Amino acid sequence: MSLIEPRTLKGFRDYLPETMIPRERLMETAREVYRSFGFSPIDTPALEYAEILVGKGGEESDKQLYRFTDHGGRDVALRFDLTVPLARFVAQYHHDLGLPFKRYHIGPVWRGENTQRGRYREFVQCDFDTIGVESVTADIEAVLVVHQLFRALGFERFQIRVNNRKLLNGLLDSLDLAERSAPILRVLDKLPKVGEAKVAEELIGSVGLDGARAKAVIAIASIQGSNAQILSALEPMAHGERGQQGLMDLRAVLEGARAAGVPEACLQLDPSIARGLDYYTGTIFETFLGDLPGIGSVCSGGRYDNLAQLYTKERLPGIGGSLGLDRLLAAMEELKMLPSTRTPVRVMLAYFDAQHLTDYLRLAAQLRGAGIGVEFYPEPKKLGQQLKYADKRGFEYALILGGNEWAAGVCQLKELKTGATRELKIAGPQGELSSELAAALKG
Amino acid sequence: MSLIEPRTLKGFRDYLPETMIPRERLMETAREVYRSFGFSPIDTPALEYAEILVGKGGEESDKQLYRFTDHGGRDVALRFDLTVPLARFVAQYHHDLGLPFKRYHIGPVWRGENTQRGRYREFVQCDFDTIGVESVTADIEAVLVVHQLFRALGFERFQIRVNNRKLLNGLLDSLDLAERSAPILRVLDKLPKVGEAKVAEELIGSVGLDGARAKAVIAIASIQGSNAQILSALEPMAHGERGQQGLMDLRAVLEGARAAGVPEACLQLDPSIARGLDYYTGTIFETFLGDLPGIGSVCSGGRYDNLAQLYTKERLPGIGGSLGLDRLLAAMEELKMLPSTRTPVRVMLAYFDAQHLTDYLRLAAQLRGAGIGVEFYPEPKKLGQQLKYADKRGFEYALILGGNEWAAGVCQLKELKTGATRELKIAGPQGELSSELAAALKG
Repeated sequence: MSLIEPRTLKGFRDYLPETMIPRERLMETAREVYRSFGFSPIDTPALEYAEILVGKGGEESDKQLYRFTDHGGRDVALRFDLTVPLARFVAQYHHDLGLPFKRYHIGPVWRGENTQRGRYREFVQCDFDTIGVESVTADIEAVLVVHQLFRALGFERFQIRVNNRKLLNGLLDSLDLAERSAPILRVLDKLPKVGEAKVAEELIGSVGLDGARAKAVIAIASIQGSNAQILSALEPMAHGERGQQGLMDLRAVLEGARAAGVPEACLQLDPSIARGLDYYTGTIFETFLGDLPGIGSVCSGGRYDNLAQLYTKERLPGIGGSLGLDRLLAAMEELKMLPSTRTPVRVMLAYFDAQHLTDYLRLAAQLRGAGIGVEFYPEPKKLGQQLKYADKRGFEYALILGGNEWAAGVCQLKELKTGATRELKIAGPQGELSSELAAALKG
Repeated sequence: MSLIEPRTLKGFRDYLPETMIPRERLMETAREVYRSFGFSPIDTPALEYAEILVGKGGEESDKQLYRFTDHGGRDVALRFDLTVPLARFVAQYHHDLGLPFKRYHIGPVWRGENTQRGRYREFVQCDFDTIGVESVTADIEAVLVVHQLFRALGFERFQIRVNNRKLLNGLLDSLDLAERSAPILRVLDKLPKVGEAKVAEELIGSVGLDGARAKAVIAIASIQGSNAQILSALEPMAHGERGQQGLMDLRAVLEGARAAGVPEACLQLDPSIARGLDYYTGTIFETFLGDLPGIGSVCSGGRYDNLAQLYTKERLPGIGGSLGLDRLLAAMEELKMLPSTRTPVRVMLAYFDAQHLTDYLRLAAQLRGAGIGVEFYPEPKKLGQQLKYADKRGFEYALILGGNEWAAGVCQLKELKTGATRELKIAGPQGELSSELAAALKG
């Protein structure tokens, strides 16, 4: 029989324990933070009717859809993000759900795009949204969620860059460019990546601005300084109701976040943040890592006026954000923030003496009962081989007991990094796990 | 513009918060239990080359495959279980991984089967396996994992029914039926579902046994009693090396599990457990709920000699099990073991007085900082409306502060079920969260 070559599809990847352990921890942290603000989990199918997904993410997204005909002749496709399924979901259930509705959703999405470094055809999104709320309180909270998320993930140097579409549109009003705001903002969004010259070229060439106004647009997006300085600079330019409303919302977000403990170093007003997507209508934000700004935004989002208009007549405004889990994981790998361990527990119990199998099993059960995870080596092989395995996997401790130890009721606790070994009693007065062993392993 | 009907595909389902909250909790419990035994997480792509999956689960499984041609003209399919991807995975990386390799994998799988009650075309599997271990220690541990899992999930009445393929084959040897063991076991596996008469009919009609031997096979599978009684009854029938080895392994599993604290009520030898799949070669088990045996096994598995033989020449024996998460969730729903809450936190902070927005935000941040999750109602609507929302969502407490409370530095803590309200100080001497409020909400 000829063998089938074990391989994965281009753009797809396997996660081995050393990557999956921190990846799982990231997801757990995200869940904990989202929950602590009252966001509830939901899940939706990987496959949807194609009509639900087609045309919702633009031409590029349609081309990248994994779309096919199922057994029942249905035209189906794999979801390419979690926002379109959310729109379908709230349209379907909003009477049941009640508003405001705050949900998070962590799950894989699929895009058949050209693969480049750090881009995969399957990746996990980690979204949170508040639906049915006009009030800027939800915008403030979105910023607090992102701040808390990065703190909980262990980051100290990161920047949430915030802006407001209403303000941007107000500024464009003042240049008499309101009608061309969508294409202008799409071009402006590339400013940090491609630079001023290229943006000017596109604003003139593709969008059709004259040179003076292209320059003025770029000048606005390039204003720098403290949040207060930028606000002062923008104030006189923000014409009309729209611009003033945007400015007011921005002030509220900055003030609210400060009150809740977000330092200014973590939250900066940035007039160049435009976000490429057309559906944003108010607050928009991106998040950059202080030590690795080059990888781009690792958490982005914004406010929208009408999430589910394609599926329901109900007007559902809201605000949300999306954590780019796999990009963040790649960044943390580069910043050496990930532990190199390949085991989820710290202790390996060596298996030395087959006569005592039931004693080992009982001890392992006692340790787990005390909340101490332990891997029991499954075969009574040579101790050297077991310790080599323990070392390779990255355990901190090996617990060693042979016939003498079982007779004396003690164990050898070996710290694998240093080789230091201590002898400890295994049982307390009532036969329970000894407190000295529990204390040594809980440390 | 005409609306698109928001709907899901037949056989697929959305998970709303009231179902997703306990579903997530089940997955977390499974992860914690798997980890505590030293199993590490892995993940693999949803999509595989079709040649990896086709023919691996039998004819039925091939028919149910979601298979299509991707953008690059590749023949691809969605995985239908997590075992075939595991086989591909260990064949691909086993030099890297090192043996023994213990992994768990929680993820969705897809089967385009006919939908019936409780059967979906997308469902989550929750598997654990130990690869590269011949020793029966790994079999004992598999039983311990399952026992611990159901205890941790809150079950007290459940039965792990265990048997051994070597023993079954030894018993068939004694009837001179060794060569037809695969089809016999496949038929025998249906015994609890279809009854003796039907199984006898199939054994005679399809497999070609004579009536006496069909009766003998069924008689063996029907032996009942305590574990010791069944062992005694089987012992004289288990001919040859195979049968004796199977009997020895079964004894080791029963004895090891007892030593580690598994009561006999939870682990019973059952000669009728055969498992339909051909690849099992030793210990096999299924798990039934004492209060709902009718839904069938909720956690099954067994030992195999050679997991990845289609992808590598390396012989990789192992043992594993699979928790049927969605079936278990349906059972827990039926048994009313699921809380009816639709929020992940217990406390809602009402928003009463817009003048104090930053004060509310600060208090919410303090609560979260103390580990108390809190949802801040995002708009200063009428209190009655906010409390109605809190009630519908299932919060335990509403925290209410208006102008008077802010002035006095107190809050009204309302227990929503009883309506009882207490007045508590919000701040301690240093402006930190007051210990009386923290204590009341941590309860």
